[in-house]
Amino acid sequence: MKNLGYYNGEFDEIEKVKIPMSDRVCFFGDGVYDATYTKNYKIFALDEHVDRFFNSAKLLDINISISKEELKLLLSNLVKKMDTDENFVYFQATRSTQSVREHVFSKEDRANIWVNVYHKKIADLNKRVKLITLDDTRFLHCNIKTLNLIPSVMASKNAKDLGCDEAVFHRNGRVTECAHSNVHIIKDGILKTAPTDNLILPGIARAHIIRACKTLKIPVIERPFSLEELYFADEVIISSAGQLCLSASEIDKVKVGGRAQGIFKTLQDYLLNEFNEQTKKE
Amino acid sequence: MKNLGYYNGEFDEIEKVKIPMSDRVCFFGDGVYDATYTKNYKIFALDEHVDRFFNSAKLLDINISISKEELKLLLSNLVKKMDTDENFVYFQATRSTQSVREHVFSKEDRANIWVNVYHKKIADLNKRVKLITLDDTRFLHCNIKTLNLIPSVMASKNAKDLGCDEAVFHRNGRVTECAHSNVHIIKDGILKTAPTDNLILPGIARAHIIRACKTLKIPVIERPFSLEELYFADEVIISSAGQLCLSASEIDKVKVGGRAQGIFKTLQDYLLNEFNEQTKKE
Repeated sequence: MKNLGYYNGEFDEIEKVKIPMSDRVCFFGDGVYDATYTKNYKIFALDEHVDRFFNSAKLLDINISISKEELKLLLSNLVKKMDTDENFVYFQATRSTQSVREHVFSKEDRANIWVNVYHKKIADLNKRVKLITLDDTRFLHCNIKTLNLIPSVMASKNAKDLGCDEAVFHRNGRVTECAHSNVHIIKDGILKTAPTDNLILPGIARAHIIRACKTLKIPVIERPFSLEELYFADEVIISSAGQLCLSASEIDKVKVGGRAQGIFKTLQDYLLNEFNEQTKKE
Repeated sequence: MKNLGYYNGEFDEIEKVKIPMSDRVCFFGDGVYDATYTKNYKIFALDEHVDRFFNSAKLLDINISISKEELKLLLSNLVKKMDTDENFVYFQATRSTQSVREHVFSKEDRANIWVNVYHKKIADLNKRVKLITLDDTRFLHCNIKTLNLIPSVMASKNAKDLGCDEAVFHRNGRVTECAHSNVHIIKDGILKTAPTDNLILPGIARAHIIRACKTLKIPVIERPFSLEELYFADEVIISSAGQLCLSASEIDKVKVGGRAQGIFKTLQDYLLNEFNEQTKKE
């Protein structure tokens, strides 16, 4: 298939799939998601993404009616139906279908399971990204990967309108994360990244970076950092499933980073190698 | 019809209506809504609800492709198809349909128009409600009536689990609003209500209350008030389209209000009369 949309056991090309109007996602954005990439029909970091997905659901009392193993098998089978071997695999669970819209839900609700698969490669890792900064006006549940994404939508549009790739959020000068990436800095040979509290998503690429730093003997400090530290960092790095890690060349039209490209490149190569190893042909 | 679901020109019973999986509401909760009630097939406060709906859309750059007059005509026509004369009329606009999920949207996108109509009367106005209080962890765009409603969903469930009707949100002790109502207090003959900033929805029932107070010579103060003022108010009032206004008997299991039932009843009678006048048989 050229692309694939799945909903509760049925699938077709995404454009042809329809879902009930009374799925709670339609009225409340009431669901959680996760996503990763494939190469050679193999799904990268699947265990970690599925674990985070179940954790997001648990934090919102969303009952996913299949097991982790069943979900992994489902995703692996759907990926095999694709014409292309390098794909984006997106999956979500919405709380329930409820013909009369009502905020309150029932403990007995069983989630609807959605999957989208379409051709998309991970980013060109040589690209250096341009960033803007924005007030973080989001809710205080950013650790949960929910479908309540309007602030990220508006921030992404805002960045694009200014010719940039991503928006860095901050709360009163404390950098949190980007609209759809985590953000880190390198200063004096140390990688600094915000701690995993309710203000940021516990990024899986972020976890891989920290793990890579440990292997590569790059010191890591997990503590809040400021906009000022961002502007004056030796390197500004964004990370996400699709970007692994990329360095930034500009923030708010001002040149940044580029002073620790050696460390950055070592780190990026390590992550790319990890991706290629896990997704290599058998 | 017993109930009615409408999507972009087609309609059927809600349970039978399907929408494309690639509507942006499915991935981002990317839309806005409004809702009101009918009696005798007449829609209450339609102009005000439609004005607020268009304003919500404008604040998010959502392009509603029909005019206010066309929307009002559509809603009036759909309401006439119902078997029942007392109904809930819910309408929403989702940003667009987009086969590949991408945060960034296009200026050229035209919104999808949704309507739900089903039998539901306004609340029993003699009921006194029980409230809980909760930290307001929502985003800072509560003035926009969006479909990003997970925090309100969780708060409503929380209230229900504690045997209560609504949750009052506060930010560090400053009362904002409820999960799906505004909240006001009466103290020493004065109605106090939070100002319409980005922390609360500009409720239409709220506006009606303020207007009624002016006619009834009840002084109104629009300024932030605290949890303490709420606990010690002569009367605690919640308001919404479906409740007009109701008084509270308990907050966090502690008895509140009940000391200005005369003023409250005058106000409530005024609002009910207004509802009945606008929706009376011709």
